[in-house]
Amino acid sequence: MLKTIEWIPSQPGHPVPGYVRLIDQTRLPGEITYLETTDVQEIWDAIKVLKVRGAPAIGIAAAMGMAVAAQQSDATSTAACLQDTETAGDYLATSRPTAINLFWAIDRMKRVAQAHAELELNAFIDRLVMEARAIRDEDEAQCRAIGEHGVAFLAECRGVMTHCNAGSLATACYGTALAPMYVANERGQQLTVYAGETRPLLQGARLTAWELMQAGIDVILIADNMAAHVMQAGRIDAVMVGADRIAANGDTANKIGTYGLATLARAHDIPFYVLAPTTTFDFETETGVDIPIEERADSEITEGFGSRTAPDGVQVYSPAFDVTPATLVSAIICEHGVAHPDYRASLAEMAGRTSTPEG
Amino acid sequence: MLKTIEWIPSQPGHPVPGYVRLIDQTRLPGEITYLETTDVQEIWDAIKVLKVRGAPAIGIAAAMGMAVAAQQSDATSTAACLQDTETAGDYLATSRPTAINLFWAIDRMKRVAQAHAELELNAFIDRLVMEARAIRDEDEAQCRAIGEHGVAFLAECRGVMTHCNAGSLATACYGTALAPMYVANERGQQLTVYAGETRPLLQGARLTAWELMQAGIDVILIADNMAAHVMQAGRIDAVMVGADRIAANGDTANKIGTYGLATLARAHDIPFYVLAPTTTFDFETETGVDIPIEERADSEITEGFGSRTAPDGVQVYSPAFDVTPATLVSAIICEHGVAHPDYRASLAEMAGRTSTPEG
Repeated sequence: MLKTIEWIPSQPGHPVPGYVRLIDQTRLPGEITYLETTDVQEIWDAIKVLKVRGAPAIGIAAAMGMAVAAQQSDATSTAACLQDTETAGDYLATSRPTAINLFWAIDRMKRVAQAHAELELNAFIDRLVMEARAIRDEDEAQCRAIGEHGVAFLAECRGVMTHCNAGSLATACYGTALAPMYVANERGQQLTVYAGETRPLLQGARLTAWELMQAGIDVILIADNMAAHVMQAGRIDAVMVGADRIAANGDTANKIGTYGLATLARAHDIPFYVLAPTTTFDFETETGVDIPIEERADSEITEGFGSRTAPDGVQVYSPAFDVTPATLVSAIICEHGVAHPDYRASLAEMAGRTSTPEG
Repeated sequence: MLKTIEWIPSQPGHPVPGYVRLIDQTRLPGEITYLETTDVQEIWDAIKVLKVRGAPAIGIAAAMGMAVAAQQSDATSTAACLQDTETAGDYLATSRPTAINLFWAIDRMKRVAQAHAELELNAFIDRLVMEARAIRDEDEAQCRAIGEHGVAFLAECRGVMTHCNAGSLATACYGTALAPMYVANERGQQLTVYAGETRPLLQGARLTAWELMQAGIDVILIADNMAAHVMQAGRIDAVMVGADRIAANGDTANKIGTYGLATLARAHDIPFYVLAPTTTFDFETETGVDIPIEERADSEITEGFGSRTAPDGVQVYSPAFDVTPATLVSAIICEHGVAHPDYRASLAEMAGRTSTPEG
């Protein structure tokens, strides 16, 4: 499987320090290029311009960003290095507003840093690097678990629809929405995945179609506005999407277009599943109304394909996410199992089982 | 208003014969260029590659194509010229399969040709040119009438959504779905039009946004997958779309994505109107199931605007149209008035009033 983001450790006896390596997803599917960096500014930029994207992968990138900040700090004391690390975390938190995993990962790194402020400087830095790598490794394990729990919902399915990219490229490995498809494929089940291209940034076309093809899974690319027609034609047995943030009541923020798919799925009696790790659950946010929605630059709509495709000066509205009310969600599948309505109780139960290694 | 397509007559005493002039819509909004032609092959190509598009405008183009075929024919007798004209009509009918107005216009031209086979050759040709120009002029008048009938449905509206381009550029003038917006604007009503960009060919971004801006109408461009979110936010009071073919029971074929919007409108209790001239009604087709749906080339999805945005070799499904069941349509507005459910009777009543000048 793809290594979306990883920490490359320093080699014993070699002067190069550890660094972050991530696939530059803005270049896919044309080119597979990697960003290798020890610069927190570069990581902030990578999140901002979607070189790394997907809620879990953003969390990993931010955690590794704090680790490189500690490593690159000029501080000569652990206390000063802790402060630089926290500053880096606050800075990375400004990169994108919607994905809750970003803030979760930053908070976790801050707590680990504060809990180890008594360590000698190098040991402190090593501890932060270890934590960032643990966040990555846990994400891979969580995604695998989501796939194992989710595959049951594909048992009777031949056609499944997804949106944006909630796959390997959005996580450490396997993805969330795509994880059950990878597991089904491993088990020899024939599935056809309909991938909406996902305007404006075409993550479905560029990333989901690409990574499923790499795995030998049958995928058919459609424009977003073809989803209803494909459902009407009886080709879709389930819709599976990821999430950027899930409120306490189960309302789910995800890539713009998700709410439309959920509404269409309901109109066609097709089950609609949200797949996400418990780190995506936000119990501080009561309902979807309270989730901040990022707006993106007009140019992503008006000149998204390299050439200008809309009149100069046209007004554009470009929300990056929408909120699907919990009433449209058939089940929420996380690493610990399956949450069912009423989600408030069911999500809390799932999250209650989360291990908190630093707690 | 724009002259989407017109017949430029030969000048008295000047050797240049009459010709067709149409805006090359594949170059909009970047460039306003015209195709000027007396070549039926060029007109077939123009329809095929969407230099001229929109069901009514395609009908006009085909009619003018038959007129230029008659004019350019080597025939030395009216009988031979009639045959060349009919051959040209059959050829033009192969350009696109879904828009019924294409076949309607070709049939009308054939009937006029057959009814005037006794004329002297030059008079015969002039008669065909006259008929093609009449089809254009009638279309403008019909669109105006659609606008007058449709504006009543905007009386309480501030936000209205449309899809693709059913505007001036899809017709001789005014358009169908956009006609009420032009009339409302003339009367000083403030409207905000949300235009879906309409993948794959972005007629909403390139054409609808452009022509509404030209008229000073407030327009906001969105990606297609943002429609549900905009409806959820309470910004939309009505959806107005055109049609490529309306079956006897009111089922409506229109640009891919229309059915999705109709489903979303119903879920949000927003009225959904279809606006089209009676030439779009197809009483030979009982229901939408019987309407042939054109599929377009994969490359329109995978490399729509110059750069490749999907993996090499990816499977694509790209229907150009979908069918909205009559049950989702609040009213069908034509040049003679407003058809309401049950559409079977109501559409027949509307079409029964159609004048048949050559009959």
